[in-house]
Amino acid sequence: MSTTELPPALAPGAEILPEELGLTQRNHSFHLEGLRYDVTPPGMHYLLIHFDIPDADEAAWRIAVDGLVRSPLELSMADLRARPAVTMPVTMECAGNGRARLTPRPVSQPWLDEAIGTAEWTGTPLAPILDEAGVDPDTVELVFTGADRGIQGGVEQDYERSLTVTEATRDDVLLAYEMNGRPLAPQHGFPVRLLVPGWYGMTSVKWLTRVTAVAEPFDGYQMDAYRVRHDPDEAGVPVTRMHPRALMIPPGIPDFFTRERLVDAGSHRLLGRAWSGWAPIVGVEVSVDGGEWTPAELGAPNGRYAWVAWRTRWEAEPGEHELACRATDAAGNTQPEDQRWNHHGFQNNAVQRVRVTVRER
Amino acid sequence: MSTTELPPALAPGAEILPEELGLTQRNHSFHLEGLRYDVTPPGMHYLLIHFDIPDADEAAWRIAVDGLVRSPLELSMADLRARPAVTMPVTMECAGNGRARLTPRPVSQPWLDEAIGTAEWTGTPLAPILDEAGVDPDTVELVFTGADRGIQGGVEQDYERSLTVTEATRDDVLLAYEMNGRPLAPQHGFPVRLLVPGWYGMTSVKWLTRVTAVAEPFDGYQMDAYRVRHDPDEAGVPVTRMHPRALMIPPGIPDFFTRERLVDAGSHRLLGRAWSGWAPIVGVEVSVDGGEWTPAELGAPNGRYAWVAWRTRWEAEPGEHELACRATDAAGNTQPEDQRWNHHGFQNNAVQRVRVTVRER
Repeated sequence: MSTTELPPALAPGAEILPEELGLTQRNHSFHLEGLRYDVTPPGMHYLLIHFDIPDADEAAWRIAVDGLVRSPLELSMADLRARPAVTMPVTMECAGNGRARLTPRPVSQPWLDEAIGTAEWTGTPLAPILDEAGVDPDTVELVFTGADRGIQGGVEQDYERSLTVTEATRDDVLLAYEMNGRPLAPQHGFPVRLLVPGWYGMTSVKWLTRVTAVAEPFDGYQMDAYRVRHDPDEAGVPVTRMHPRALMIPPGIPDFFTRERLVDAGSHRLLGRAWSGWAPIVGVEVSVDGGEWTPAELGAPNGRYAWVAWRTRWEAEPGEHELACRATDAAGNTQPEDQRWNHHGFQNNAVQRVRVTVRER
Repeated sequence: MSTTELPPALAPGAEILPEELGLTQRNHSFHLEGLRYDVTPPGMHYLLIHFDIPDADEAAWRIAVDGLVRSPLELSMADLRARPAVTMPVTMECAGNGRARLTPRPVSQPWLDEAIGTAEWTGTPLAPILDEAGVDPDTVELVFTGADRGIQGGVEQDYERSLTVTEATRDDVLLAYEMNGRPLAPQHGFPVRLLVPGWYGMTSVKWLTRVTAVAEPFDGYQMDAYRVRHDPDEAGVPVTRMHPRALMIPPGIPDFFTRERLVDAGSHRLLGRAWSGWAPIVGVEVSVDGGEWTPAELGAPNGRYAWVAWRTRWEAEPGEHELACRATDAAGNTQPEDQRWNHHGFQNNAVQRVRVTVRER
């Protein structure tokens, strides 16, 4: 069995490996034309599944709340549903989105731009549950365990991630059991998952079985894996919140194979969405053929954590063109025009570029 | 804009092209552990979308029934819903399933084994609608037009496929508007699609806007594209019904990157599903390490067109093993042990092989 470390990043022009092809078949991308919807329809939301989708029995499902707590809890799904429910639209993105556009290409799930989605999540806040369990003041982190088990980097593991007490007890951190008003689909964490709005998706542990209060920072495999490193041997910086990103609906009609676009000359509406986990989006700009960045019109916000719509017009002249868009948030973060490489290919929020052929009307 | 013909098939070991990566991000695969469900949960069913998902307005949607008919019709969604409704479970598979396992690899959507799914489809039979329109006796085919438009092989087109009058008027051919008891998702053809049980998925035209009775066999792009050719210049044979296939849930736990499996030594249940568009499944067999084929136990059929469950036991001895399964239908069709190459990589129903490492308990 091949359980060795991932191969190093691959040189420019290197082949996409059979393993990468296998991963990208399981891990579904969003369809960019779905940016027309405020809330992503079922089945169009991105998916990143580390191991297998567990065979979950809702009636038998329990979440243990244990570790450094005064009163350990065992919560059934009925217990969760009996607690106060919150519904909110949240945009989620994989930390590896954009990885396949890096050169050299870090080898893992080879995302292009579409590891995104926005759902209306319903669940119950975690903080009151932790309060009820009585988390010890010595606790520094909560560890969240999923039911999906497998091997990564040679380490057999349940999927596990942690959060500091401060982050875990934010009002908007939920134990979520519905997506778009329906029970979670198996592949999205049925019957219950953690939801941490604003953070990249790896934090929102699916198929949640356990929440454990611990006195030391958790050093499990997935904590080490999700770090931004420019050298493989450096400690690196943890991946946390989503960096700003704007995406557009590619205009016109596609070529089946190349996905390049064909539009008629004239005035076209360009539409898209933008989000950031750090602060609200304050601007989206569009550039044609590498020219100046011109502001698009922003739609009304839909809560703090859902993407915001944007639109502008493009006067399309016959010929070959390249459209680009970029978002800026209220914390002053904006998207780079060029790819910023790191060892595992995280947080690559370089601007989207769409090639379009414009023909005479 | 690159709208040229697809490149020829690629040599053994050739790189997967960026265009193939782009296609496989849009075209979602089934998750094999989902073989545990009789009916595939929303979002786990395979998807093959030639062009873009149209922005459909259900209230304004019309299906035109025209061509060689006495009384052309314009059917609204309300008209369709007022007609008799039929619900049935149907297994659907892409004609290109297995393409990426061929050597040399035909270049298109690079499916492995998972371009499958089974849904409970609800719709109204097409035959009475054709009867009402009064199809002329000179009609030889019905042409079905979708709202998705794009360019393929240099040809700008609406997605269009035809059926003979005999096939189109089968009782079980539906205009389907629900999947698993809910309106179709946009990516599955909302608000209405053709459903042709038993045939590969390209026939079940999504986003259906028009049904046209014609006096000559339809020679549109997609009719020429979906043919089995061993030489690119031969006329070839049309792709029609699904060839038999059995798939198993890979046992044990996966390695994240290689998807190879790890199980403990001992007795394991192997489970899967099997189907054929030609005739009911009469047998599924399992082979370990290339040894003899031994029969699995078949579950009860779930209608003529849904996959049938199968199960068997495997006494797993420590070491490296390869499991394989194959289905046989009542028409005497069975799966080949080796890949059978053809020019565009259709109907590749070679047996599934799953590599497993067994460890001492």
